[in-house]
Amino acid sequence: MTKKIFLTEDEMPRKWYNIAADMPNPMPPPLHPGTGQPVGPDDLAPIFPMNLIEQEVSTEREIAIPDEVLQIYRIWRPTPLVRAERFEKLLDAPVKIYFKNESVSPPGSHKPNTAVAQAYYNKVAGIKRITTETGAGQWGSALAFACCLLGLECKVYMVKISFQQKPYRRLMMMTWGANCIASPSDETQAGRTILSRNPDSPGSLGIAISEAVEAAVSDPSGETRYSLGSVLNHVLLHQTVIGLEAKAQIEKAGDYPDVVIGCAGGGSNFAGLSFAFLRDKINGKDIQVIAAEPTSCPTMTRGPYAYDFGDTVQMTPLLPMYTLGHNFMPPPIHAGGLRYHGMAPLVSQLVRDGLVEPRAYPNLDTFKAGVDFARSEGHIPAPETSHALAAVVDVARQAKAEGKEKTILVNFSGHGLVDLTAYDAYLSGQLTNYALPEEEIVKALKDLENFPKP
Amino acid sequence: MTKKIFLTEDEMPRKWYNIAADMPNPMPPPLHPGTGQPVGPDDLAPIFPMNLIEQEVSTEREIAIPDEVLQIYRIWRPTPLVRAERFEKLLDAPVKIYFKNESVSPPGSHKPNTAVAQAYYNKVAGIKRITTETGAGQWGSALAFACCLLGLECKVYMVKISFQQKPYRRLMMMTWGANCIASPSDETQAGRTILSRNPDSPGSLGIAISEAVEAAVSDPSGETRYSLGSVLNHVLLHQTVIGLEAKAQIEKAGDYPDVVIGCAGGGSNFAGLSFAFLRDKINGKDIQVIAAEPTSCPTMTRGPYAYDFGDTVQMTPLLPMYTLGHNFMPPPIHAGGLRYHGMAPLVSQLVRDGLVEPRAYPNLDTFKAGVDFARSEGHIPAPETSHALAAVVDVARQAKAEGKEKTILVNFSGHGLVDLTAYDAYLSGQLTNYALPEEEIVKALKDLENFPKP
Repeated sequence: MTKKIFLTEDEMPRKWYNIAADMPNPMPPPLHPGTGQPVGPDDLAPIFPMNLIEQEVSTEREIAIPDEVLQIYRIWRPTPLVRAERFEKLLDAPVKIYFKNESVSPPGSHKPNTAVAQAYYNKVAGIKRITTETGAGQWGSALAFACCLLGLECKVYMVKISFQQKPYRRLMMMTWGANCIASPSDETQAGRTILSRNPDSPGSLGIAISEAVEAAVSDPSGETRYSLGSVLNHVLLHQTVIGLEAKAQIEKAGDYPDVVIGCAGGGSNFAGLSFAFLRDKINGKDIQVIAAEPTSCPTMTRGPYAYDFGDTVQMTPLLPMYTLGHNFMPPPIHAGGLRYHGMAPLVSQLVRDGLVEPRAYPNLDTFKAGVDFARSEGHIPAPETSHALAAVVDVARQAKAEGKEKTILVNFSGHGLVDLTAYDAYLSGQLTNYALPEEEIVKALKDLENFPKP
Repeated sequence: MTKKIFLTEDEMPRKWYNIAADMPNPMPPPLHPGTGQPVGPDDLAPIFPMNLIEQEVSTEREIAIPDEVLQIYRIWRPTPLVRAERFEKLLDAPVKIYFKNESVSPPGSHKPNTAVAQAYYNKVAGIKRITTETGAGQWGSALAFACCLLGLECKVYMVKISFQQKPYRRLMMMTWGANCIASPSDETQAGRTILSRNPDSPGSLGIAISEAVEAAVSDPSGETRYSLGSVLNHVLLHQTVIGLEAKAQIEKAGDYPDVVIGCAGGGSNFAGLSFAFLRDKINGKDIQVIAAEPTSCPTMTRGPYAYDFGDTVQMTPLLPMYTLGHNFMPPPIHAGGLRYHGMAPLVSQLVRDGLVEPRAYPNLDTFKAGVDFARSEGHIPAPETSHALAAVVDVARQAKAEGKEKTILVNFSGHGLVDLTAYDAYLSGQLTNYALPEEEIVKALKDLENFPKP
C-alpha cells in the first residue's frame, strides 16, 4: 500500500462545489443593520468586486475554476492525501486515518485556495490593490502570496501586538512584496482615532478590520477592494477544492470515510474538506461530519444561532450564525485562527440541520494530539490543525471502546513551523485548560438581544 | 504540460548510488593526524557504528536502501520535480528550469535523507543514543526528526549564540523530543574547560563538535555514537536518492539537463542531486555540473586542495579536500550551512578532475535570486538554496548572451520559512557583499603548512 495518494494535475477539479444548491434548508439572508432588510449586491459593491458578490449569492451547484487560478493552484496542488499509519499504530484503535495535507502550499496552510481566487477576481474586475486585516498572520501571508503572483498590490493591517511579537509571518508578507503595517496605524481615520485615545494601543482584530475596510472604500481612485479570509460563502466555495480532491483520492485508494473532520474557526478549512462529502450525506450516505472547535471559544457548542455582526466593530451586515456575540473575547490560546466569535453562515445552517456535529476540545488535549502526531507522522501541525487531530483521537478512542472499525478523513490544514513558540509553551508546562464561566458567555450574548431573530 | 513531475512510491529508487565505483581517479585516503598513516575502520569505531564505517569505505556501485528507511522516506519522498515556468519568464532567457523540491520534508530540507539512514544504521547496530552538533539548527532538527521516528535518543549541542537568537529550529528539535542544549555546556570536559576560561562564551561549531564527540565516546555504556550531517562519503551516499529520483523524473518529462546545479557548503545536497548525473558525464555525456558557494567562504574557488582537519578542534582525521584552513572564520552571512572551511573529499576530487565546476556568488546576488524566485514561483528558498538559484540566474544570463537554449536542473534544497530574519535584513538594506581580502586566506592557510600533501 502506498502512503501518499496523489492526483495528477490533469485530475485536478475544474469546478468548485457550491453547497447552497443542495442544502435541505436555505439560509436566512444577511440583514442591513440599519434597516433590518436583506442586504443586496449594491450594499456590498464598495467593499467587494461584483464577480465575488455574485458568487456570494449564487445557487449554481458548480462554478468553474478559471484557468489562471488553476495555473497558480498547480504550484502546490493537487495536495497529497496521506495514510497516517504511524499515528494509527500509536492510537492502537481499529481506525484507518487519512489526512489531506494542505500545509504544502508556500504560505503553509489552506488559505491560498481562496486568496488566489479572490486576487484573480479582483484583478479581472480592474482592481489594482487589496486590503485586509490579519491577526497572527496566516491569512495576511496567504493574501500577500496570492497578490504577488497575480501582480496586485496588497496592504495588510496586522494587529500591533502580533506585528511586534510574531515577526515571521510579517516577514513572509514582506518577502512576497506586500505592505504589512501595524494596526492601529496613522493612515486611517479609524486608526488615528484609536491612537489619539491610546497611543500605546496593542490593536485588535476589530480595529484592523476597520482600518482595512476604510482603506478600501475611501480610495478615491475606486481601484481598491477589501478581502476576507473566512466566514463568507464565496470564501468557503473556493476551499471546496480540498474536499473534491480528497474524495477523488480516497476513492482511488478504494476507500470512503465514515468520519470527516476539520477544525473550525471561521469555518473555511472545515467547509473546504467536508462540503463534497456533505453532498453525499444529504443524498443519503451514512457518514459523520465533525467540526472541532476550542472549548475556550465554543461558538457552535455553546453559542446560540442568531443574527450577529461578523466583526467587533459592527461594519458587516448581520449574519445568521452560531455566535458568542461580537464582543466576546476568547482567552489567548495559541490557535489564533480559531479565536473567532462566530461561525460561517453556511456551516451554521448545516449544524442547525443536524448534518454537521460540532465538538469542542480543551487546549491541552489539542497540543497532546499535535505532539503525538508530530512524533509519529513527522509533520508538526499548526495549533489550529491540532484541534482536528484531537477529534481524531476522540473518534479513535470511541471506536476502540465500541469495537467498531472506522475510516477517518481529517484536514491537515497547516503546519506549525512558524508557530513553534506555542509548542514551547506547551512542552515547558506553561499552558492550562481554560474553564470558561457560563456568566461570561451570558454577558457576551446580551449584545444580541435587540437584533432580529433568524 | 504539467508543472510538477511526480514519481509514485513504487518508482522510488531502492538503492543509493556510490560514485566511488565510477570515479576516474580514486581519492587519497584520510590520514591519522598523529601517525600520518591512513586511518582504518578501528580508528573510527568509537565514533561511528561499523555498518556506516563500511559504507564510508565501500566501492560498491549500488547500496540497497533498507526497507525501514524506505518506509520513512515515504513520509515526504518521492519529492516533486517542478518546472519553474514563472521564474523562466522573469529571467527572459532561452532556458528551461526544473527544480527538485527537497523542502517538502517535515524539517524543511534535504538533511533527513541521511539523518534517517544514519539513525537506522545506528539502531540496527544496537546504539540507543546519537549526539551531534548544530549551528543554525538545520542538521540538528533533521537528526531530531529521524531519531524520533526510529525511537532513538538524540542529543544536539547547539552553538549558544544560535540557541539564543534562533529559537525556531531549537523548538522543532524539542517538539520531536530531542534534547537540545546550548554549547558550551557544563556536561562535557570540553564545555567546562571553555566555560572556566570564559563563562560568557557564545560558542562555536568547533566547540559544539568537541562536546558532541566527547559525549559519544565517553559514554561508559558504549551505546552512544556521533553523527555528522555532511562531508563524509556515507552522508553523500544517502543523499544520492535526490538525483536518482530527479533523473527518473526529468526523463519522464522527456527531457535531460544541460546544466546541473546545487549549492555547496559541506557538499551533501550538491552531491545528492549531481552524482547520478556525474555518472553519465563520466560515461561521456556532455553536461555541465556547477557547485555554487558564497564568495565569503570560497572553499573551492580560492582554497587549495590539501590535507586538513574536517573540524576546527582537530578531532577528525586529515581529509583530502579543498579547504580554507580549519581556522578560517567566514563572515557571518545568513547561509549558515555554507559557512564551512572545507569541502567533501568526494566533491573535492571531482572538482580536481574537472567534472565539477565551482562558482562563487556574492551575498546580494544570492538574496536577489531568492526574492525573485519567491515572487515568481511562490516558494521562499533557504539562504543556502539561493546560492544555487544565483547560479541559475548566471547560467540563464549567459545562455541569453550566447543565444543558446539550455535545460537547467537545480536542487531546491530547503525552504526559508524559519530563516526569514535573513530576508528582513536583505529587504531593509542591511546586507552588503563581503570583500574577502587575500591576506586573510593566506593567513588561514598557514595552518596547513606542516600537513602531508595529497
